[in-house]
Amino acid sequence: MLKFSIHKKLDGTLARAGEIETKNGKILTPAFVTVGTKATVKSLTSEQIRSLNAQVVLANTYHLYLQPGEDIVAKAGGFGPFMDWHGPTMTDSGGFQAFSLGAAFGTAVSKISTSDVEVSDTSVNPGQLAKVTDEGVTFKSHLDGSKHLFTPESSMEIQWKLGADMIFAFDECTSPTAPYDYQKKSLARTYEWAKRSLERHEALDTEKQQSLFGVVQGGRYQELREEAARTIGALPFDGFGIGGSFTKEDIGTAVGWVNALLPEDKPRHLLGIGEPLDLFNAVEAGCDLFDCIAPTRMARHGTLHTKDGRINIKNAKFVDQFVPLDEDCTCYTCTHHTRAYLAHLFRGEEMTAASLASIHNLHFILRLVENIRASILDDSFHQYKKEFLERYYKK
Amino acid sequence: MLKFSIHKKLDGTLARAGEIETKNGKILTPAFVTVGTKATVKSLTSEQIRSLNAQVVLANTYHLYLQPGEDIVAKAGGFGPFMDWHGPTMTDSGGFQAFSLGAAFGTAVSKISTSDVEVSDTSVNPGQLAKVTDEGVTFKSHLDGSKHLFTPESSMEIQWKLGADMIFAFDECTSPTAPYDYQKKSLARTYEWAKRSLERHEALDTEKQQSLFGVVQGGRYQELREEAARTIGALPFDGFGIGGSFTKEDIGTAVGWVNALLPEDKPRHLLGIGEPLDLFNAVEAGCDLFDCIAPTRMARHGTLHTKDGRINIKNAKFVDQFVPLDEDCTCYTCTHHTRAYLAHLFRGEEMTAASLASIHNLHFILRLVENIRASILDDSFHQYKKEFLERYYKK
Repeated sequence: MLKFSIHKKLDGTLARAGEIETKNGKILTPAFVTVGTKATVKSLTSEQIRSLNAQVVLANTYHLYLQPGEDIVAKAGGFGPFMDWHGPTMTDSGGFQAFSLGAAFGTAVSKISTSDVEVSDTSVNPGQLAKVTDEGVTFKSHLDGSKHLFTPESSMEIQWKLGADMIFAFDECTSPTAPYDYQKKSLARTYEWAKRSLERHEALDTEKQQSLFGVVQGGRYQELREEAARTIGALPFDGFGIGGSFTKEDIGTAVGWVNALLPEDKPRHLLGIGEPLDLFNAVEAGCDLFDCIAPTRMARHGTLHTKDGRINIKNAKFVDQFVPLDEDCTCYTCTHHTRAYLAHLFRGEEMTAASLASIHNLHFILRLVENIRASILDDSFHQYKKEFLERYYKK
Repeated sequence: MLKFSIHKKLDGTLARAGEIETKNGKILTPAFVTVGTKATVKSLTSEQIRSLNAQVVLANTYHLYLQPGEDIVAKAGGFGPFMDWHGPTMTDSGGFQAFSLGAAFGTAVSKISTSDVEVSDTSVNPGQLAKVTDEGVTFKSHLDGSKHLFTPESSMEIQWKLGADMIFAFDECTSPTAPYDYQKKSLARTYEWAKRSLERHEALDTEKQQSLFGVVQGGRYQELREEAARTIGALPFDGFGIGGSFTKEDIGTAVGWVNALLPEDKPRHLLGIGEPLDLFNAVEAGCDLFDCIAPTRMARHGTLHTKDGRINIKNAKFVDQFVPLDEDCTCYTCTHHTRAYLAHLFRGEEMTAASLASIHNLHFILRLVENIRASILDDSFHQYKKEFLERYYKK
């Protein structure tokens, strides 16, 4: 089970710098969690993940359940050893992908998209297709259309076999457009599922090898978010996830409502966040962990972070720029290659383009969160935030 | 200009172990040349190429001419610096791809296929589509259908800008099914092109930075192969390429006819060969260098070399084999991953599958040729060949 300690709290905010200790190593927080969807960070080797000084990798329960199956992963000793990652690990509950990639594919349950599949923001009400009942979520595999049921119990069983250090309770991830009545009803269900998740987890993990995070939902309603923070926060979880969709404005408010009420001595993970502005706001609002596929998905499409904002390397102007993507960047890509070379690889649709771009974007976001942590420790957070965001967003 | 020295000749064969010195470093021969088609070894970073102890990288003139264009590559200082490869380099003449990927696409000029495109072995006569004249080869870009002309002079000019240490004279790569009369006529043209290549090369490269290899063609006709070896061999080239299609049986004979006549003190490169049996036979027949896309193309399709022959990792039996691809292999992939994990990545169509498989197959072939070299030096070649081939081909 994890140990969480807080090294420093930033006056006048909910931000804190701390440390999570797991059986596979320490995580200095705030920390960005690198997403390794199917027990692989897309286009990278495990050696490249280590070279990025990634602290923790999160794999998706939905994907590994469908392929290769949790039993195969268990035989490998868990998804970490399976992919040759020996640091701290997390898995999500599978619920979010069951909604967004499974039966409810194409409905508005997604703030992020998963894997290579873009989830469009339509106005279809989730639940109509996802077949949510009090028992669990019935969904069809996006791979072969086969029908599956995730319950709080089965999610715990699958995550037990996937073997991550930190796992998540099974929750219903509602659409941000779902009305108050649906959100309220869903929240009650998520609370019941949280208790069932805890119960099954405790029965499975008698030696406390895994830490279970409860998930706070509630849409955009302050009343519901606060209720969820109080009720989920009162359960004996080892940490908390904050789920659901947020606009950039929400993060400073909705996440703050939740974190003001969650127990201070447990880590808080904001699910699916990876934009610079969101990261600053979420840290300020008291979050410790973030995961997002955006750095690698953007990278595969040629959209690259620089301190002066995003660029798309496929743009014609880059084909003869014999300088690094970002001259101050210390990543492998920037210290070995030019914009011209990356532009060439993207135009040639070479696989190495995705690797080099992913290395750069992950390095950028990992270092950003490290710098945010350092700025909490030396009380320069507000100045760092202002300078970084002004330059990045050219305000 | 290169310096070639022979360290050891194997009695009773044409095999020799030697060393090529270029301005970017030494190549111990026999050596396998790693193919970096578009100034990238598909799915690998330059660091990964270095980790494989690759000695020399060959890029394709046709591909780099079309994209990004030789002027961009020249501005980067040549294709080596462009891709962050600082060891010895080669480019081919562009002729082969102009035939096989350009206008003559789909005709039978290919013993290998290039890039991701399979070239089928039809009975269409090359030249009908490729528009070969004494001036050069007119072809259409496989990228956009635009029309281009390669001549011996333009090939030298492009290769000069691409900046490799070793380059090839422009030749006509004939179909193995072309009749004697066509082969004979073509050979006369290749001879004229060889002289024009030399002339243009000498005018461009006044400081002798590049070494030019002449190319020996002649199809399957001993008379023509020997004539080509004598005439091309008498020209002041720095080395020789042996082109055209060969069956497994041809390599021991046709290549031997050529190498018995070529000057002994210059390196010989057999173009497009990368199968274990072919490598042994070609070394025995006096070749020093080989390039082939097969190791990486096979890898991307899941076909992997082991000392017990090829396996296809997509086969169902591998999904729960928690052992390395080849237990004795020292490559990154085999020392970090299991067959089960690779099977999972291939089934999930993950890009990392291609990287890990390419690392393994290149390591396998690079080490094989290193071992062949060692077996020449310690007089165990025949024993090593017999043992390796018996096990690999299960004879």
